[in-house]
Amino acid sequence: MADKIIYLDNNATTKVDEKVLEEMLPYFKEEYANPSSMYDFSKNSSRAIREARGKIKDLLNAANEKEIIFTSCGSESANTAIRGVLNYDKSKKHIITTKIEHPCVLNVYKMLEKQGYKVDYIGVNANGELNLDELSHAITDETALVSVMWANNETGVLNPIEEISQIIKSKNKETKFFVDAVQVAGKIPIDVQKAGIDMLGVSGHKFHAPKGIGALYINSKTMITPLIIGGHQERGKRAGTENTPYIVGIGKAAELAIDNLEYEMTEVKRLRDKLEKNILQNIYNARLNTGLANRVPNTTNIGFEYIEGELILLHLSDLGICASSGSACTSGSLEPSHVLRAMNVPFTSIHGSIRWSLSRFTTEDEIDYVIGELPKIIDEITSISPYQNELKALKEMRMVK
Amino acid sequence: MADKIIYLDNNATTKVDEKVLEEMLPYFKEEYANPSSMYDFSKNSSRAIREARGKIKDLLNAANEKEIIFTSCGSESANTAIRGVLNYDKSKKHIITTKIEHPCVLNVYKMLEKQGYKVDYIGVNANGELNLDELSHAITDETALVSVMWANNETGVLNPIEEISQIIKSKNKETKFFVDAVQVAGKIPIDVQKAGIDMLGVSGHKFHAPKGIGALYINSKTMITPLIIGGHQERGKRAGTENTPYIVGIGKAAELAIDNLEYEMTEVKRLRDKLEKNILQNIYNARLNTGLANRVPNTTNIGFEYIEGELILLHLSDLGICASSGSACTSGSLEPSHVLRAMNVPFTSIHGSIRWSLSRFTTEDEIDYVIGELPKIIDEITSISPYQNELKALKEMRMVK
Repeated sequence: MADKIIYLDNNATTKVDEKVLEEMLPYFKEEYANPSSMYDFSKNSSRAIREARGKIKDLLNAANEKEIIFTSCGSESANTAIRGVLNYDKSKKHIITTKIEHPCVLNVYKMLEKQGYKVDYIGVNANGELNLDELSHAITDETALVSVMWANNETGVLNPIEEISQIIKSKNKETKFFVDAVQVAGKIPIDVQKAGIDMLGVSGHKFHAPKGIGALYINSKTMITPLIIGGHQERGKRAGTENTPYIVGIGKAAELAIDNLEYEMTEVKRLRDKLEKNILQNIYNARLNTGLANRVPNTTNIGFEYIEGELILLHLSDLGICASSGSACTSGSLEPSHVLRAMNVPFTSIHGSIRWSLSRFTTEDEIDYVIGELPKIIDEITSISPYQNELKALKEMRMVK
Repeated sequence: MADKIIYLDNNATTKVDEKVLEEMLPYFKEEYANPSSMYDFSKNSSRAIREARGKIKDLLNAANEKEIIFTSCGSESANTAIRGVLNYDKSKKHIITTKIEHPCVLNVYKMLEKQGYKVDYIGVNANGELNLDELSHAITDETALVSVMWANNETGVLNPIEEISQIIKSKNKETKFFVDAVQVAGKIPIDVQKAGIDMLGVSGHKFHAPKGIGALYINSKTMITPLIIGGHQERGKRAGTENTPYIVGIGKAAELAIDNLEYEMTEVKRLRDKLEKNILQNIYNARLNTGLANRVPNTTNIGFEYIEGELILLHLSDLGICASSGSACTSGSLEPSHVLRAMNVPFTSIHGSIRWSLSRFTTEDEIDYVIGELPKIIDEITSISPYQNELKALKEMRMVK
C-alpha cells in the first residue's frame, strides 16, 4: 500500500474529525451510564444526548428538537421514514421516487412493489437533473409518499427540493415528502421548514462523524410506525439503548458542519473545480458527466472514454489515491452505474466514469499530485484500449475544439 | 453527585473495557475507509471486520462465521430475528414466548398480535423458573417460533436452553428457536450448536463493548427477511455501511469475555454472593426474590419489604451507588416489574425490589462499602414506612428464625 492516502472518496465515507473523537471519548470512559437510568450518574449522558439533538435541529433548521431521532445509519433512517409512514397509514398505495436514488433506498422500493405498492421512478436528463414535469404529472390522490434525494451520491447533482415540495403540496396536500439528505449535510445549507420537507435523513459518517450513526427528521405533523420496536427510547420512535458516544459525535459533527459550511462552499469548491478543470483540459478523452448542472461543492464525476474505470481505480490505489466508480454499497458489481445509465451517459464513457469527492481535509497539494499523476495513468491505460481508431478520431476532434 | 461511582447496574449497561477502546481507536483515526470500497485503503477495515466476526463466532461457538451478522443493538438483533423469520415464511401464525422476556422483546410480540399472530406467554414459578410443561404443551404444528431469553435481566435466573430446544424439536422440527442471550454473554459459556439454537442475539454494551452494537447468530438452515433493507452488507441480511470501530470493539469484547469467563464465574460470583448473604443476614426485611434458582454469577434481586424501591435508589444514588428497580428501558414507570409480578412476588416486597448486578470491574471494597451503608439506608426508610405494625411482626418472626 502507498505510504500516504489521498482520500477523494468522501461521498463513500469521511474521516472522523479529531474534534468529534475528542468529544466522544468521555462517553467511552467515565460517562458510561445508560442514559435511561434514573440515578444521578446518568444525568451527564442524558444531557449530552439532549444537546446533540439540539445541534442536529440546528443543522437542519427544524422547528423543534423533538422532531429529531437518532438511528444507526442512513439506511435505517430511510427505512424508518419510508416504511414507517406507509405502515402508519396503509390507505394509499402509490409512491413516487427517482431513478437515481441511492441503491439502498431503491431496494426498499423494490420490496414495497412486491408488497403491492405502485412505484413510479422519475427520470433525469443528460446532466442528471430531475424531470419535474414527469414528477408533477405522476402525483395523484392516491400518492402516499414522494421520496427524492437532495443530491445524488455519484454526480453530486442537486435536486430543487423546495420547488419539488411546492409541486407535491399543490397537487396533493396529504402526500408525504421524504428527502434523503445523506449527500448534502455539511455541503449546502439545509432548512427543512423553508424547503417544506416532512421527513429527512442524514448519515453521520458522510460529514465526519463515525460510521454507525444517523439522524432522522420527522416533522410534528407526520406520524410513523417505528422500524425497531422495543423500549421507549427516542420518544417511542426507535428502540435500543442510546449510543451516547456516537450521538455526541454526530452532534459535534453537525456543529462543525455548520462552522465549516462557508469553507466547503468556497475553498472545497475551488479545489474541486481546479481538479475538474485540469482533468478536462489535460486529458483529451475525459468527459464531465454532469455538464453544467447545479452540484454540491465537493463532487465531480468524469468519464474517461474507451477505458475501464476499475483499471483506473487500481492504478490510483497503487499511488494511495482513493476514488470510486459507484456507491460503495454496490461495489464489487461490474454493472455500470444505474445513475449514469438513467442519464444516458454514452457507453463509450460510462464504463470509465470516476467519482471524485473532496472534503474539508483535502489539501491543494493532494489535488496537485492527482493532477500531475492522472494524465500518465490515463495515457497508459488508453494505450492498451482496443478502441484505438475511435480514440484517434476523438483526439483529433477534441484537439480541433 | 458523589465523587466515586459504585456501579452495580451492569445488567443495564457496562463500562467499555479500556482494551476495547484501544482496539477501536485506529478505526476512528487513520483507518476510516468504507470497508466495502475496492481500493487497498479499505483492506485493513474489511480484515478487521472479518476478524471480529470470527471472535463472535468463538464466543457463541457457531459452526461458521458466516452465521454471524452485526447489528446496532440487542433490540435490532431481536427485531431482525423474530420478524425476519416470520416474514420469510408467513405460513404459520403461532408463537410461543415467556412472560418474563425483556420489555423490548415483549413489545415486538404485542405488535405481532395486532398483525394476527397468536402468542402464548409461558409463565414462571415463584423463583422465576420457566414452566417447561406449559411450554411443551403449547407447541403445535402451527408454531412458527419459540423465543426464550437465556437469563432474565432482572433476576439473573437462567432458563435451561438446551432442554427447551430438545422439547421444541421433539414436538415440531420446523419450529424455529430464538434465544435472547443479551444477559448471558460473558457470564456463562454459550454453545449455540450444543444448545440447538437457530437464532441468538447479543448486545455489546452488556459485556464491555460500547452501546450501539449488537450481533445476531442465524444458523445456516434458518432463512430471514432482513429488517433494514438496502445495500449488500452483512451478506444481504443487514444494510448500512459497516460500523468498523464498534464491530472491532464487540469483537475485542467477545475475546475478553472468553478470557474472563472463569473470573466471572468464580470471583464475580463470590462478590455477588457476599453482597447477597450480608444483605439477607443484616437486614431483617430483605428477601431474596429468586430463592435457590440457578442464576448468572453477577446478579441478585432482593426485595426490601414494606418500603419503596425508588426511595432506596435515591439514597443509594446520593452515595454514588448505582442499582436499579427494573430495566432501564422501562425506568420512569412506577408500575412494578412484569417479571416480579409473573413470579407472584408478594406485594409487600415487589415495590421495594432492587436488582444488583456486578461486573469484572466490581471490587471487594465497593461491595464492602455497600454492605456497610445499605443497612443504615434501609433502616432510615423503614422507620418512615406506614406499615410499622407489619414490620414489627416481621422483625419478630425473622429474629426467631
